[in-house]
Amino acid sequence: MAAVPKPITAPPDKEELARRLANVRSRMKEENLDYYVCFDPVNIYYLTNFANNVHERPFIMVIPLKGTPVMLCPLLESSHVRARARCELEYATYYEFPAPAGQNWFELYKTLFGKRVRVGVESTLPVGIADATPGSRVVTDIIEDVRLVKTDYEIGRTVHACSVINEGHRKILEITRPGKVEVLIYGEVVRLMMGKTLMEIPGANLIVSKFVGAVWPPSLSHDPHIVPTPGTAMEEGGPHVSIVTAQVDGYGVEVERTFFLGHVPEKARKPFETMMKARALAYGMVKPGAVLEEIDREVRKVIIGAGYEKYILHRTGHGLGITGHEAPYVALGDSRRLEPGMLISIEPGIYIPGEGGYRHSDTVLITRDGYLRLTDAPDGLEELTIPLGEAE
Amino acid sequence: MAAVPKPITAPPDKEELARRLANVRSRMKEENLDYYVCFDPVNIYYLTNFANNVHERPFIMVIPLKGTPVMLCPLLESSHVRARARCELEYATYYEFPAPAGQNWFELYKTLFGKRVRVGVESTLPVGIADATPGSRVVTDIIEDVRLVKTDYEIGRTVHACSVINEGHRKILEITRPGKVEVLIYGEVVRLMMGKTLMEIPGANLIVSKFVGAVWPPSLSHDPHIVPTPGTAMEEGGPHVSIVTAQVDGYGVEVERTFFLGHVPEKARKPFETMMKARALAYGMVKPGAVLEEIDREVRKVIIGAGYEKYILHRTGHGLGITGHEAPYVALGDSRRLEPGMLISIEPGIYIPGEGGYRHSDTVLITRDGYLRLTDAPDGLEELTIPLGEAE
Repeated sequence: MAAVPKPITAPPDKEELARRLANVRSRMKEENLDYYVCFDPVNIYYLTNFANNVHERPFIMVIPLKGTPVMLCPLLESSHVRARARCELEYATYYEFPAPAGQNWFELYKTLFGKRVRVGVESTLPVGIADATPGSRVVTDIIEDVRLVKTDYEIGRTVHACSVINEGHRKILEITRPGKVEVLIYGEVVRLMMGKTLMEIPGANLIVSKFVGAVWPPSLSHDPHIVPTPGTAMEEGGPHVSIVTAQVDGYGVEVERTFFLGHVPEKARKPFETMMKARALAYGMVKPGAVLEEIDREVRKVIIGAGYEKYILHRTGHGLGITGHEAPYVALGDSRRLEPGMLISIEPGIYIPGEGGYRHSDTVLITRDGYLRLTDAPDGLEELTIPLGEAE
Repeated sequence: MAAVPKPITAPPDKEELARRLANVRSRMKEENLDYYVCFDPVNIYYLTNFANNVHERPFIMVIPLKGTPVMLCPLLESSHVRARARCELEYATYYEFPAPAGQNWFELYKTLFGKRVRVGVESTLPVGIADATPGSRVVTDIIEDVRLVKTDYEIGRTVHACSVINEGHRKILEITRPGKVEVLIYGEVVRLMMGKTLMEIPGANLIVSKFVGAVWPPSLSHDPHIVPTPGTAMEEGGPHVSIVTAQVDGYGVEVERTFFLGHVPEKARKPFETMMKARALAYGMVKPGAVLEEIDREVRKVIIGAGYEKYILHRTGHGLGITGHEAPYVALGDSRRLEPGMLISIEPGIYIPGEGGYRHSDTVLITRDGYLRLTDAPDGLEELTIPLGEAE
């Protein structure tokens, strides 16, 4: 098995960003595009290292096939862009939203393109901006495609981000006890992860630093996307499901475990074992060349074979990178193949109303000959049954 | 002057949400629309009380002119929508993103519309969803317009939200001292505001609860949209500029002050006074019937008259409501008129590189005969010069 790559905490250098832009341009060439318009703040961050919150004053990056990309942004933010962006950019600054006639963003925007051009846009581009885009418009998610396979730099950042959530998860198992309420767990775990991040990356960008450390107790764990209220109390027994996710100065990762406090209810054993079997099967298939939907199909067979078809709520996994959820998807309908350098979660789940949910999730790097799990938490039933005598 | 309305912390009732929907439909009728498509999570929250994070699995609300609105959402989230939505909805649930052919969101989405229809969409609708929308498409921000004038319920929620940030701001002035670093101020102020919110609204929805309590010290305060790094230290003197904003269980508010630690540098007096004059002039104009851009024009005249034209970075203010930034805008180019029930910020600013920034901001309710300031913090130079002997 390959060694875990070294963690990286430094911001990307010019060469890293230049390579990303070159990859986007090589796709533009293939699709015969004169310009590509980038509005999704995630894609802008990927190409520039500058992160913005979306609000009524648009930030739009216009990438010509040749020459320097242009950042259209409000006057108020231009020094913010300059402070964070680590690539060559030209600036097209408008005063405000709204502005007097002739000085609005859309009036300036139109001047950034040549005549009779073919312009690629993201599928997430707001229709109001798409309609203001001159030339003939092609919806094509080039940057999403380029982001599928991570660079060594991105992998190093992800390794570091995983070290943060690994600590967060250890803390979750240490402090979650019957009666403890959600907000106290959340507060302590988030503080720990944020503190570690700020110690290790003093210049971390807070716009792309987010932390979640929470536990779904057995009364909620069958419902993975409900949001527990702050006073939700942990219970004796289980299944509890932890969710520890973070975006650590721009890099999104997750680790989740199904665990028990004090004892394992008898009826929890079969679904736990089934989840573990489905998960082991997924890991057995994860390597370069594997077709994503085939992994999901085989995983589903295991769960369906155990009689739990109606308790499947989601796919086997999803990509991670500068977000916590992105392409590719380990899902029926995704016919792409795994490649070295992809990052995915493996997290088959079983959700039984009235009993609880069963899911482990990890952040997994695809390597040349298989995979490396970058997150680290116990996964067996015995280790995940916490004796109550050990409470703090 | 009118009395401050009573704070409200309860979620909206069915009647409140039904009135909002009726307002949207009356605009649909005026614009001859058969359907309106709502994707912006802010607008979905406004109409349903359900808040979602945007990710690759879309949530789309399809509003027919008559009959029950339909929520298109992923299987994984349908119980989450049901748990929070407080209005009548029909559900169109798709399994996952992606999904096998025939089971994708866009295939289900198309079935939600009749034939030969006129469909209104938001200008922020992703072009990928706009292109999947059947019928003839009209970009029209109906819900943004309906949200301009707040209901009594919304005003009560905003009054409560302001009580949270008023406490946050008192704490900021209490704890900010030379040498203190950003992350400590932030941690203490955010914890205070979050604690108050959770005590008063135990079922608060964390997806729409966000808190910021920060100070731009004089070396940064000329640059209002830069993001200070966590270790940024406060300084003796000033101008420091505080930013205390929150979304308190869905309601966005702000209060900001220019203040000094120990002493006021001589060269800070004129810009501070000019800002105060511009601000007083704005308040003098704020009442029903006032044209928004005229307020901004007059405010600019005061600042320009003092020789500070090049130090203007932004408009006089913006609307607030279920977000911290929304229409209307107190800005050149916004020719709408103030109406009772609107909520705006008043925050003219002057930003001098090498010296610092000058801005007070408040959350202001337009009343029948003028306005009510819902935020509460000292605003005079003397009160805002904090004697250093009083440090904790």
